[in-house]
Amino acid sequence: MKINENFAKMTPSYLFAEISNRVKKYKEEHPEADVIRLGIGDVTLPLAPAVVEAAKLAADEMGRAETFRGYPPYEGWDFLIEAIRGYYASFGVKLNYGDIFVSDGAKSDAGDLPDLFSADNTVLVPDPVYPVYVDANIMGGRRIIYARGNKDNNFLPTPGDIDGGDPDIIYLCSPNNPTGATMTREGLREWVDYANRIGAVIIFDAAYEAFISDPHLPRSIFEIEGARECAIELGSLSKTAGFTGTRCGYTIIPEELERDGAKLNKLWMRRQSTKFNGVSYIVQRAAAAVFTPEGLEQCRKNIAYYRENAAIIAGTLDRLGIYYTGGAHSPYIWMRCPDGMGSWEFFDLLLQKANVVGTPGAGFGSEGEGYFRLTAFGSREDTAEASRRIEKLLSK
Amino acid sequence: MKINENFAKMTPSYLFAEISNRVKKYKEEHPEADVIRLGIGDVTLPLAPAVVEAAKLAADEMGRAETFRGYPPYEGWDFLIEAIRGYYASFGVKLNYGDIFVSDGAKSDAGDLPDLFSADNTVLVPDPVYPVYVDANIMGGRRIIYARGNKDNNFLPTPGDIDGGDPDIIYLCSPNNPTGATMTREGLREWVDYANRIGAVIIFDAAYEAFISDPHLPRSIFEIEGARECAIELGSLSKTAGFTGTRCGYTIIPEELERDGAKLNKLWMRRQSTKFNGVSYIVQRAAAAVFTPEGLEQCRKNIAYYRENAAIIAGTLDRLGIYYTGGAHSPYIWMRCPDGMGSWEFFDLLLQKANVVGTPGAGFGSEGEGYFRLTAFGSREDTAEASRRIEKLLSK
Repeated sequence: MKINENFAKMTPSYLFAEISNRVKKYKEEHPEADVIRLGIGDVTLPLAPAVVEAAKLAADEMGRAETFRGYPPYEGWDFLIEAIRGYYASFGVKLNYGDIFVSDGAKSDAGDLPDLFSADNTVLVPDPVYPVYVDANIMGGRRIIYARGNKDNNFLPTPGDIDGGDPDIIYLCSPNNPTGATMTREGLREWVDYANRIGAVIIFDAAYEAFISDPHLPRSIFEIEGARECAIELGSLSKTAGFTGTRCGYTIIPEELERDGAKLNKLWMRRQSTKFNGVSYIVQRAAAAVFTPEGLEQCRKNIAYYRENAAIIAGTLDRLGIYYTGGAHSPYIWMRCPDGMGSWEFFDLLLQKANVVGTPGAGFGSEGEGYFRLTAFGSREDTAEASRRIEKLLSK
Repeated sequence: MKINENFAKMTPSYLFAEISNRVKKYKEEHPEADVIRLGIGDVTLPLAPAVVEAAKLAADEMGRAETFRGYPPYEGWDFLIEAIRGYYASFGVKLNYGDIFVSDGAKSDAGDLPDLFSADNTVLVPDPVYPVYVDANIMGGRRIIYARGNKDNNFLPTPGDIDGGDPDIIYLCSPNNPTGATMTREGLREWVDYANRIGAVIIFDAAYEAFISDPHLPRSIFEIEGARECAIELGSLSKTAGFTGTRCGYTIIPEELERDGAKLNKLWMRRQSTKFNGVSYIVQRAAAAVFTPEGLEQCRKNIAYYRENAAIIAGTLDRLGIYYTGGAHSPYIWMRCPDGMGSWEFFDLLLQKANVVGTPGAGFGSEGEGYFRLTAFGSREDTAEASRRIEKLLSK
């Protein structure tokens, strides 16, 4: 009996668990402290009324024999798949019904998609990046290479920034987690052309697309010509509709996407029908309500609220003269730590002197060292108070 | 770019997808046929009123800022973990809080648990067996060996029936899917002792435990001494509480279970925190309601209904003089095909001549050839009608 030898190559604790441990310890030692958490990217506004109503109706349906539903289709219920198609059509992206797979969240699929690929493949991730792309592939024994983001490229690395040769799998995330940096159409086209040229597959994480307000910025990789021949897209309702605790997302694998003689769409169906049994009917009904005119309007109101939070934090950093990315089309603000401090050093300072929790940039990759992520998902009151404390602490 | 080479080693279509295709084709050709499905193990009775009520209350909570919940804990919400502990305590099994992980269903965890183990490990599965154990491990590149079930051991193979040396991982399922055969305490003890002796890990699928009515039969592997040192248990609400479309289960990994210098419980937490984001709050509240006195009583009523269906089918086979296992502590009846027919041959005969859909035993492994699975999850009316048709078709 041997355990998976790759676990030993991973850092022993997941980033957010480490943060949670440090905060817990601090609170035990300072029970009186009023700690504001702008760390983990978790939403705080309640579900939209249309979503709650749909969930309750679905629960009622499940309680009556005539409307009860058993195992969901592996790819998701038709009403939700059609709703997702309609949503994409609203910004000009045409999807086939068979392209779409409903998931219990983008994180599961970001971690499980590597099941489709050989352990011999090389995986490219931007640095800094959401740790799941790296950890899930280390767990699967794949080689990881990086495209470095930094102040010079405004944390939007291009294929020219790759260290270590051509990859087989490329993770991209725009608007980016953690940097909030958002790719332009031209920037994204460069990646699509590159992937098609070398035969790589792009896994494009669009979890934050709903925060994009500039119609010139792409919300989906399928707005780019050639993407259907090289890309998989991850969608999430966590940030779009406050579904972090409700759990629903979707994965788009174009039916024509083929590598090494196999249709990836069919492989994924085989994977899902073997190791997954679909998403709760109640949750899928709640998710479909997000895409109704009423649901969209209610969700957009919440996003506007978070955007205003982001503007408050960004304004504070502007006044302090601190470099940052994000904030405009993203709930994240990626700031340079003051006075050349390290990420965890600034984490401890902010926790202890301002009772504000953020996320150390170093937790997202080596290029994140010296940076720090704040999120706009707090309440208005908390965000304003945290901004005041940060301004007070860092004003010279 | 290479795809996962192990996909090519799997049969191209998952068993139930193949059945669904054949039925679809038949119905297209015979639109007038009144086809009764006793094939896939999907329930038909609606959710219990206590469960529906809890789901609706939870949806309401998610719609109010004061009670909204974001990301769930990876291991599940405390109220559900405590409810599961209480349920196990009711039949004498003491679990630690930290032993329990809430899942979106036993199938996901049956398929994902191999992530913890090296690809070099050898996996033992009973034959016939639920195809997920085999397919998920082929996908991970592991060697599979079998313990043969047959009429001689009443489809309850022992360690003495293993073909191919000692395994590292052992899947067991009792009451068994597909055979309905249920292990005795002595039979299960033999496996626990064997696993401890050779250092293997047992993954014990207890998805059907709620169907056990004889208090002498074990409902959990943790009723057996020594199991905490070698076993992981999968629990499901799919059959216990009609959750096939609601999606919730749990996995029990004793905190002391250690292999190759690692605590499996901690590895699983690392896996889940990387590749999973927990189960919907609404679903977890619905699941917790199953374990209230009211919920348990309502769910037991449903199980009694299915048990009576099983008795109707079993009675039919008794009258026909056909050998079968299951039916008593299981929703499955595993029958020998008449006249030496093959499984798929009998599937086609039953579909075409009686318009009844069952599951060909051959789909569960080579020892299943010549056998056929019927389920008790249909309505009373459908079950009685299907039994009448079977009796008419097979009476000499």
